Amino acid sequence: MKIVIVGCGAGGGTAAQFARKTDRKAKIVIYDKEGYGQYSKCALPLVIAGKDWKEIIEFPPSWFEKNGIEYRHEEVYKIDLEGRVIEGGKEEDFDKVVVATGAQPSCPFEAKGALFLRCLDDAIEIRQRIKKGGQAIIVGAGLIGLEVAEALAKCKMKVKVLEYMPYILPNMLDEDVANYLLKKLPIDVELGCKVEKIEDGKVIANEEYKADLAIVAVGNKAITPFGKAIEVDEKCMFARDAFAVGDCTIIRDFFGRKIQVGLGSIAVRQGMVAGINSAGGHEIILPSLLPKTTKIFGIEVASVGLLSNEIDGISSKYIGKDLPHYMNGNDILVKVIADKKGIIVGCQAIGNGASKIIDRIALAIYNRMHVSILAKMENSYAPAVAPVFDAVNIACQMLNKKIKKGRN
Amino acid sequence: MKIVIVGCGAGGGTAAQFARKTDRKAKIVIYDKEGYGQYSKCALPLVIAGKDWKEIIEFPPSWFEKNGIEYRHEEVYKIDLEGRVIEGGKEEDFDKVVVATGAQPSCPFEAKGALFLRCLDDAIEIRQRIKKGGQAIIVGAGLIGLEVAEALAKCKMKVKVLEYMPYILPNMLDEDVANYLLKKLPIDVELGCKVEKIEDGKVIANEEYKADLAIVAVGNKAITPFGKAIEVDEKCMFARDAFAVGDCTIIRDFFGRKIQVGLGSIAVRQGMVAGINSAGGHEIILPSLLPKTTKIFGIEVASVGLLSNEIDGISSKYIGKDLPHYMNGNDILVKVIADKKGIIVGCQAIGNGASKIIDRIALAIYNRMHVSILAKMENSYAPAVAPVFDAVNIACQMLNKKIKKGRN
Repeated sequence: MKIVIVGCGAGGGTAAQFARKTDRKAKIVIYDKEGYGQYSKCALPLVIAGKDWKEIIEFPPSWFEKNGIEYRHEEVYKIDLEGRVIEGGKEEDFDKVVVATGAQPSCPFEAKGALFLRCLDDAIEIRQRIKKGGQAIIVGAGLIGLEVAEALAKCKMKVKVLEYMPYILPNMLDEDVANYLLKKLPIDVELGCKVEKIEDGKVIANEEYKADLAIVAVGNKAITPFGKAIEVDEKCMFARDAFAVGDCTIIRDFFGRKIQVGLGSIAVRQGMVAGINSAGGHEIILPSLLPKTTKIFGIEVASVGLLSNEIDGISSKYIGKDLPHYMNGNDILVKVIADKKGIIVGCQAIGNGASKIIDRIALAIYNRMHVSILAKMENSYAPAVAPVFDAVNIACQMLNKKIKKGRN
Repeated sequence: MKIVIVGCGAGGGTAAQFARKTDRKAKIVIYDKEGYGQYSKCALPLVIAGKDWKEIIEFPPSWFEKNGIEYRHEEVYKIDLEGRVIEGGKEEDFDKVVVATGAQPSCPFEAKGALFLRCLDDAIEIRQRIKKGGQAIIVGAGLIGLEVAEALAKCKMKVKVLEYMPYILPNMLDEDVANYLLKKLPIDVELGCKVEKIEDGKVIANEEYKADLAIVAVGNKAITPFGKAIEVDEKCMFARDAFAVGDCTIIRDFFGRKIQVGLGSIAVRQGMVAGINSAGGHEIILPSLLPKTTKIFGIEVASVGLLSNEIDGISSKYIGKDLPHYMNGNDILVKVIADKKGIIVGCQAIGNGASKIIDRIALAIYNRMHVSILAKMENSYAPAVAPVFDAVNIACQMLNKKIKKGRN
């Protein structure tokens, strides 16, 4: 049995590990065009901010070799599924293949001299180009754009973010929640701003912005030897003996929608599944609820499931404190979204513990719970930890009332 | 319609509010033997530590009066359900009654000169008796005992806690988890220590302990005009037109066990239900999963559902960091307990976010989820917020492996 894994990101690297765990004797080969081994792509903004890049390496090339996985620092140009051979530095045959070729930044406009953040070399280059006191322009106020903005601000650059949409984090938050967050961010964001092009030293949009450093973070598209994203099933399979994982894949999410993968949390779970299955095991992946989180300028933000504009539903938003009134609590926002019947389908949260709040609501969505149940359920309570009715509970009580009223 | 509520703790006070919301015209009377109105009993240790007691008042007597609820600072000695009359300062008739008379500390040994912490006056008295540099002995290492110990330590008393059981927080944690916690607490605890009696200035146990201040926190028992705890149904009813809420009641929990209520989170939800029902509405309470939390010496502790010694089940415990390896994470412990088939029945957590972790697992227990699902589910991930497989996920993966192995 020979398993060839093409790509060493979160998906590919994890697939190699789990193939090894599943079959101690199989020959396993992993191709890594970058040469760093498996590292955390989500940590790249931290490298820009000054973290030693060596720290974010999770499994260096030597780790793979130590675990009996042949590591090749080579790019793969072609995968012949019929002939069961890949073409990297030279041809290599396989019994099973796992494609984990990732994605690359997309850009709908000409962007001369602009930088993109996709891989470790990009982060290192951006780091080198930082100019204290200089002006950085970030195009795109998505997760990556905002995290890069924070990193550059920490490095004492003046930072401006240009976003085409009317609000930040449009793939993660509703407009009202995004605007609540934006008010708390010490950052200059230009909304509804269409960039025409970038030339050396300037970004041309509604006006011309001088840019000592211009970074574009407006989206990614899959890169595969097949010229397009790979649609995989719940076994992470797309053809006989062929698996694919990570940002080069299209999956069906919990709501039945086809989506392109763009989260490390999905990639590693795909890696587990494809690794096990490619080595003869039997595993399936759960459909993703798309939990997302980040911490920007110290503020935790998270969301899961559907956004309001993705369903004809109903929502309630609670903004309050995360501790009882007599404690020194912090601001917390929780917005819960349900379908017209009251089945919970989404949640957004801002404040300490936002990530854990949406992990909790993920279970409610998974179990197709009605908001009336969450409105009644007890949360754990202690003055120093949480109020007797916490933000989730109150948001659900509000939503439940709305739904009851609509019904009567 | 005349509703009389006997007791103004979390349960009684909340019942009055919701009775008022449900029926704007009903005559509502609330009896409060203490005279402070509704305050947070869970915040009493904070009052000992120095918080102004006025801050923890949630609804003062004037609030009730303003909302058209007659407030009587009187104790009720007798409730005649047949004759529909209570005896306080004088007789008062009712159409519906809500009993919320609470509990009082129990003590199986003679305790001369010892103090107990049950009500605000107790906290104020303990606060007055604090002697900087003096020796405090706390009997009982449950939630209240430990919180009082911390409060007194903050006030510069030397503190020793004596616990009869072989580990701390025996109603909340398994022994291994309790011992993990104890190692992190800067506090002197004597385990397996049976107190014989307390005399002025000393506590007599395995040895004699000098005590400038001795506090007993070994449990509570219901106080009701009926001489025993009141068993209520899901409507919080125990007889025709008679409801009861809070620490004076016995309920059936999620697992079908009869338990005496001892959590503010249950009392307020009972108060909602009894308040609504007493005023002619229709509401039921969800069976409690017994979520519990506290923060002791800065360490968050939480548990939900069954303990290991309450079920013939199987468990896994993960101890690690709450962030990826390249971030500066804090220690986190998560122990997950399942029945022999793998259905999740309990969870204990120690570390930042422990409370929110067990709120998440509460949903898993409520939905009778199998650990194999939680082992596969995605958690929200970002380097600054949570690792790609968080502690819950890993503990569930470990437990799932154990269960699979047991099956094969």
